[in-house]
Amino acid sequence: MSKGITSKSEDYSQWYNELVTKADLAEHSAVRGCMVIKPYGYSIWEKMQAALDKMFKDTGHTNAYFPLFIPKSFFSKEASHVEGFATECAVVTHYRLKNDGNGNIIVDEEAKLEEELIVRPTSETIIWNTYRGWIQSYRDLPILVNQWANVVRWEMRTRLFLRTAEFLWQEGHTAHATSQEAIEEAEKMLEVYADFAENWLAVPVVKGVKTPNERFAGAVETYCIEALMQDGKALQAGTSHFLGQNFAKAFDVKFTSKEGKLDYVWATSWGVSTRLMGALIMAHSDDSGLVLPPKLAPIQVVIVPIYKGEEELGKITEVADSLVAQLKQKGISVKYDDRETQRPGFKFAEYELKGVPVRVAIGGRDLENGTAELARRDTKSKETVNREGLAERIEGLLVEIQDNIYQKALRFREEKTTEVNSYEEFKKVLDEKGGFVSAHWDGTPETEQRIKEETKATIRCIPLNNKAEDGVCIVTGQPSPQRVLFARAY
Amino acid sequence: MSKGITSKSEDYSQWYNELVTKADLAEHSAVRGCMVIKPYGYSIWEKMQAALDKMFKDTGHTNAYFPLFIPKSFFSKEASHVEGFATECAVVTHYRLKNDGNGNIIVDEEAKLEEELIVRPTSETIIWNTYRGWIQSYRDLPILVNQWANVVRWEMRTRLFLRTAEFLWQEGHTAHATSQEAIEEAEKMLEVYADFAENWLAVPVVKGVKTPNERFAGAVETYCIEALMQDGKALQAGTSHFLGQNFAKAFDVKFTSKEGKLDYVWATSWGVSTRLMGALIMAHSDDSGLVLPPKLAPIQVVIVPIYKGEEELGKITEVADSLVAQLKQKGISVKYDDRETQRPGFKFAEYELKGVPVRVAIGGRDLENGTAELARRDTKSKETVNREGLAERIEGLLVEIQDNIYQKALRFREEKTTEVNSYEEFKKVLDEKGGFVSAHWDGTPETEQRIKEETKATIRCIPLNNKAEDGVCIVTGQPSPQRVLFARAY
Repeated sequence: MSKGITSKSEDYSQWYNELVTKADLAEHSAVRGCMVIKPYGYSIWEKMQAALDKMFKDTGHTNAYFPLFIPKSFFSKEASHVEGFATECAVVTHYRLKNDGNGNIIVDEEAKLEEELIVRPTSETIIWNTYRGWIQSYRDLPILVNQWANVVRWEMRTRLFLRTAEFLWQEGHTAHATSQEAIEEAEKMLEVYADFAENWLAVPVVKGVKTPNERFAGAVETYCIEALMQDGKALQAGTSHFLGQNFAKAFDVKFTSKEGKLDYVWATSWGVSTRLMGALIMAHSDDSGLVLPPKLAPIQVVIVPIYKGEEELGKITEVADSLVAQLKQKGISVKYDDRETQRPGFKFAEYELKGVPVRVAIGGRDLENGTAELARRDTKSKETVNREGLAERIEGLLVEIQDNIYQKALRFREEKTTEVNSYEEFKKVLDEKGGFVSAHWDGTPETEQRIKEETKATIRCIPLNNKAEDGVCIVTGQPSPQRVLFARAY
Repeated sequence: MSKGITSKSEDYSQWYNELVTKADLAEHSAVRGCMVIKPYGYSIWEKMQAALDKMFKDTGHTNAYFPLFIPKSFFSKEASHVEGFATECAVVTHYRLKNDGNGNIIVDEEAKLEEELIVRPTSETIIWNTYRGWIQSYRDLPILVNQWANVVRWEMRTRLFLRTAEFLWQEGHTAHATSQEAIEEAEKMLEVYADFAENWLAVPVVKGVKTPNERFAGAVETYCIEALMQDGKALQAGTSHFLGQNFAKAFDVKFTSKEGKLDYVWATSWGVSTRLMGALIMAHSDDSGLVLPPKLAPIQVVIVPIYKGEEELGKITEVADSLVAQLKQKGISVKYDDRETQRPGFKFAEYELKGVPVRVAIGGRDLENGTAELARRDTKSKETVNREGLAERIEGLLVEIQDNIYQKALRFREEKTTEVNSYEEFKKVLDEKGGFVSAHWDGTPETEQRIKEETKATIRCIPLNNKAEDGVCIVTGQPSPQRVLFARAY
């Protein structure tokens, strides 16, 4: 079985698809638009979950679980929300199958639901309907709850991890006594996401707010983190919404304040999904396969013996076992691959494909010399090193690799972020260079829409702490107080 | 808000329902049969998940994720499987909503699926359809995969945790080259479940196999663990199935053996669910509320100050802070509850309701005497103890409580397990004493069915390593080689 993949310069999209399937991350299932996340891919997702979950708990949140199904009537209660999701809802209409008498299994028409149930595309409605029972007074606030769940959005064009009908995610839903507290929460969670993206995924992100056009359906303000992929396209990696009192009003959730006043509750919601797997893959990988940041790599170090005959293998195994023990002692996940059915070259290619950050090869000469070959996945460099202190060296190397992957992605993004001052230049940069394009915009949805139609670029965000700079819109020439960030996006 | 609950001797069922809702474990949602698992309940479930997940990984399993939806046609492929689940399936028929023009959101009839999708009630079919692509030769075996997921079974009568339309669970699905290896896997996972039930839930279980009548739809053999609740009813706490080649044949999954022979793959599946929460609650709790085994308690120790005035509170807080630090050092989860809005008596009742295993109260006299009041939830006993070495004492006490809860449940089960030798006696014991009834049975489904109809008791299992004992069936007088375990059950 050849594990070779298409070169990304040749066909980026094909490269991505092959990488995802050949590295055993995920595959298409028999159900349209739904994926199977394979064990290797899932183990990376588990590491993401664990890191995020800890960050949520460290910021005072707890997990809970709400129903998969949402009554159709709930959906209609928040007008812009239903408009945003209605066209992509999986709808449950019956609750029983039966045998038609000819051995065929058919839907039992007698078991039709009185009210259809929507498979949740997001849970604001069912959760705010629940919160009504949990909140009476300011003493019941804030509620800081997160849910890990599957959701379904019936996408017509799907891609593994990036856009699938069913995906896994977390959705935080918080309730607050004041607008200010809710805004602070939304901003705090954006910081958590940015921290996670940069320090775990090793993906630099721009923090910003969405334009009204790109806001979450039902939000007053949508904060986002935007990342740049190696093909120069942007990817929205996480969003955090300040929902105002929209859902509290739709579901009649009021509280008595300290002063005895009755008011609607303020809300946020925030989420990241298995889409982050797509970001991780596209931000760092190369033509040999995945490049995983050590903090998320299921196997951080692989040791491969290179030997002639059982006796030599025995001696190498002794050395390897000791290194394995030392690395485990340090909390490093390590695999010793002494399979006799595969040659070293095959193994090297396999672990490159799977993105294992560090490879140690030990051969007959190394036994004599007290050395080993140490190779790093990110730079593909290798060197012969002394085995003395090797575990410590590897420990440091993992930190170095994590940082190097991030720095490389950061340099790439900086190089691919261009300020332009005319629509001409804007289009030229998009077509020839790609990446983020920073330009003045007149602030109207009409201009935003026109640019999108003419160039396929959208406003990814208005960066937080954006520099005030007087200028004129590249399209209309109208005055503009700041630049915004455009890109073609996933 | 009164937290008092109905006495369990008065109305066991009411006691259970009130306990689940008042202790903030779960509540009914707006969606028929679906529950909301509240943060406190979910935090117990998370502890269960973490313990089980580690046990699965320690026995060589990895996690993966398969689609929520199953095409209807897949369901029909294994005859007894579809028969078992067809009458309780949620069916997705459409993938879009629309506005009817009058402001009503309706199902868009133009968006009807060609083939209906079933919301998974269990995943054998979609998984075995996937395994066909993963397995060619014996080298691809075994596959040892587990999935944490939500499933839906449209139950008509539901009860929080015990029987809900949607529930959370894990389902292991393994593939093997030989029948023997698959049987060993099914038995190994039964042992894992029994170990978890006894050492984490502190619930003693009987390990056994189900009669053909009670087998999982599609299984060749169903292993189970059965627990006894305080009302004398049994509860199936986990099952592990040897599936033979049934699903491999239904989905055409073959492999080439070492000897070059083509054969169907052998399978197991095994699962436990949020039903375990019901078992945990019903096995140990009392009229004051939950009794949690320390290993699963989100808060293991609570410290309550009893004070007059700010100054005394300050001094007590100093002492408490030091104890908190010492306990955390030992990995014990502890909460210091210095809320000034509630009296100590209220707090005591609240933590009893929530099942916190150990309570420490510190008052003014304790400050002088270097003492504290130490109370345990399981026995409700309390004593004044020296604060010297208190952290160590609590550490030991948690172990003692875990064991005591288990021993108490074990004594209860032993006392409530009765051997009977006539149908008369059988019925009398069921009605007057409850619990497990060990009796001879002629081995026929007809007799089993008759007993069920006449007494509402089912055969919970044929215990593993059952003693051979010649006898006669209590109903028909036919010869029987062993006793089996009957009970009325959840």
